Amino acid sequence: MSPTAFKASFRVLWADTDAAQVVHFSNYFRFFERAEEEFYRHLGFSFADIVDEGLWLPRVEALCRYKKPAKFNDLLEVELTIEELKEKSIRYCFRISDKESAVLLATGYVVVVAADKQTGKATHIPKEIAEKLKPFCK
Amino acid sequence: MSPTAFKASFRVLWADTDAAQVVHFSNYFRFFERAEEEFYRHLGFSFADIVDEGLWLPRVEALCRYKKPAKFNDLLEVELTIEELKEKSIRYCFRISDKESAVLLATGYVVVVAADKQTGKATHIPKEIAEKLKPFCK
Amino acid sequence: MSPTAFKASFRVLWADTDAAQVVHFSNYFRFFERAEEEFYRHLGFSFADIVDEGLWLPRVEALCRYKKPAKFNDLLEVELTIEELKEKSIRYCFRISDKESAVLLATGYVVVVAADKQTGKATHIPKEIAEKLKPFCK
Amino acid sequence: MSPTAFKASFRVLWADTDAAQVVHFSNYFRFFERAEEEFYRHLGFSFADIVDEGLWLPRVEALCRYKKPAKFNDLLEVELTIEELKEKSIRYCFRISDKESAVLLATGYVVVVAADKQTGKATHIPKEIAEKLKPFCK
Repeated sequence: MSPTAFKASFRVLWADTDAAQVVHFSNYFRFFERAEEEFYRHLGFSFADIVDEGLWLPRVEALCRYKKPAKFNDLLEVELTIEELKEKSIRYCFRISDKESAVLLATGYVVVVAADKQTGKATHIPKEIAEKLKPFCK
Repeated sequence: MSPTAFKASFRVLWADTDAAQVVHFSNYFRFFERAEEEFYRHLGFSFADIVDEGLWLPRVEALCRYKKPAKFNDLLEVELTIEELKEKSIRYCFRISDKESAVLLATGYVVVVAADKQTGKATHIPKEIAEKLKPFCK
Repeated sequence: MSPTAFKASFRVLWADTDAAQVVHFSNYFRFFERAEEEFYRHLGFSFADIVDEGLWLPRVEALCRYKKPAKFNDLLEVELTIEELKEKSIRYCFRISDKESAVLLATGYVVVVAADKQTGKATHIPKEIAEKLKPFCK
Repeated sequence: MSPTAFKASFRVLWADTDAAQVVHFSNYFRFFERAEEEFYRHLGFSFADIVDEGLWLPRVEALCRYKKPAKFNDLLEVELTIEELKEKSIRYCFRISDKESAVLLATGYVVVVAADKQTGKATHIPKEIAEKLKPFCK
């Protein structure tokens, strides 16, 4: 069975741009995170719920490859899939396209670790969360 | 005795600009806050110390008047004075100039309240902090 | 006839928050601007179209009064009205509420001037834009 | 001869943090860029000068590995070296440490391409710039 991709869609804001009149390169990482937040809501929980379970989701690695610049007012589509789901970490993959033209703008990934809020140490992703993530795994 | 002005100086970053090739209007408030942070360090404490005293310094009002646009790489000078020091609040005034040309770019103010971290209610500014602030009052 | 209010609604992102676990005070100005961008799209044009007419919309004054802190994941409603529509400037008023509880979080305004992109001088707001703005005036 | 590393040093601002009370992961990329901007100034030119030569320096890839979280008020040291200097691109390497404790917080890289502002196509890095970059190459 092929994996399901979760899709989030939103517009580039003026505040996302820089003096080159394109989206500042750091903001693609915010777009990745925004898709991840919408994904958790779509699954029926949020960062806030995860924190309530005594967990933290720190990022340990993040990469972005820039293909074409996104510009003010562009309607973006961010596609999220899970490339690797381990006991204690998740590797999310992202593809950002212009929704209207379907032109690919950027790709990237973010590796997130489950960490105990008290000790700060890596810990197991709770089963009920892991179960909900599986359909999105490659 | 005329009040002392505290001065902080820093460059406009590429990330501070927007597609109009000037500093995004929201970032002047970050420049105000940055000057305030440097001011506390100059006085010998930091936001962090204030938090350790069980206090929070939420902002209740902030205003900026934009005169001339600041641009990438400009060396800014932010002048901070205290317009009003009350028992539970401080009104900081700011003037942002281009340091090299002395041209005035923006003016504004931020009203900060001392709040108890537990209850969230407004509380007295600790005496040792108030004493250090007085020389900067108009 | 009472003025129409334009309403935009969106969630607080993790990236909007600061170490006090509330929205950073500068980001309310980005929320104001985001509502303004959605407003222009609602009227059938965008910042981009305005720029194509040879105009720029620099901000000359911006104020925010903070009532209650917005937090991560909150669904905000930003209400926009026009307090003053002059030949060369617009004073937008904003009210930000928690959409679910209807609790008022912040109010503020932003004064925008129409400026000629070439000369940088204040200029008339084009009639076709002014006409569309009128129903939203107080 | 071992390469020279360029070092920039600055404090974490309150606005750099998020609700986990650490620096937001996207802001490390802004710290990389800030070091790059100071590096160009150190070499005697700026982004602005490069733009004046008809060049643009778009980013084509950026990665960060997060080791330990940076917190508000931390004094950071960002070390920049050049891992690869090609005809049309530069791969900058970064190491961010806590300046006081020398603890490593993050490492990463950014690949920058020289592009013609008119055509948008990759072009040669001007010789006078390439010459200045060489001492910083690994």
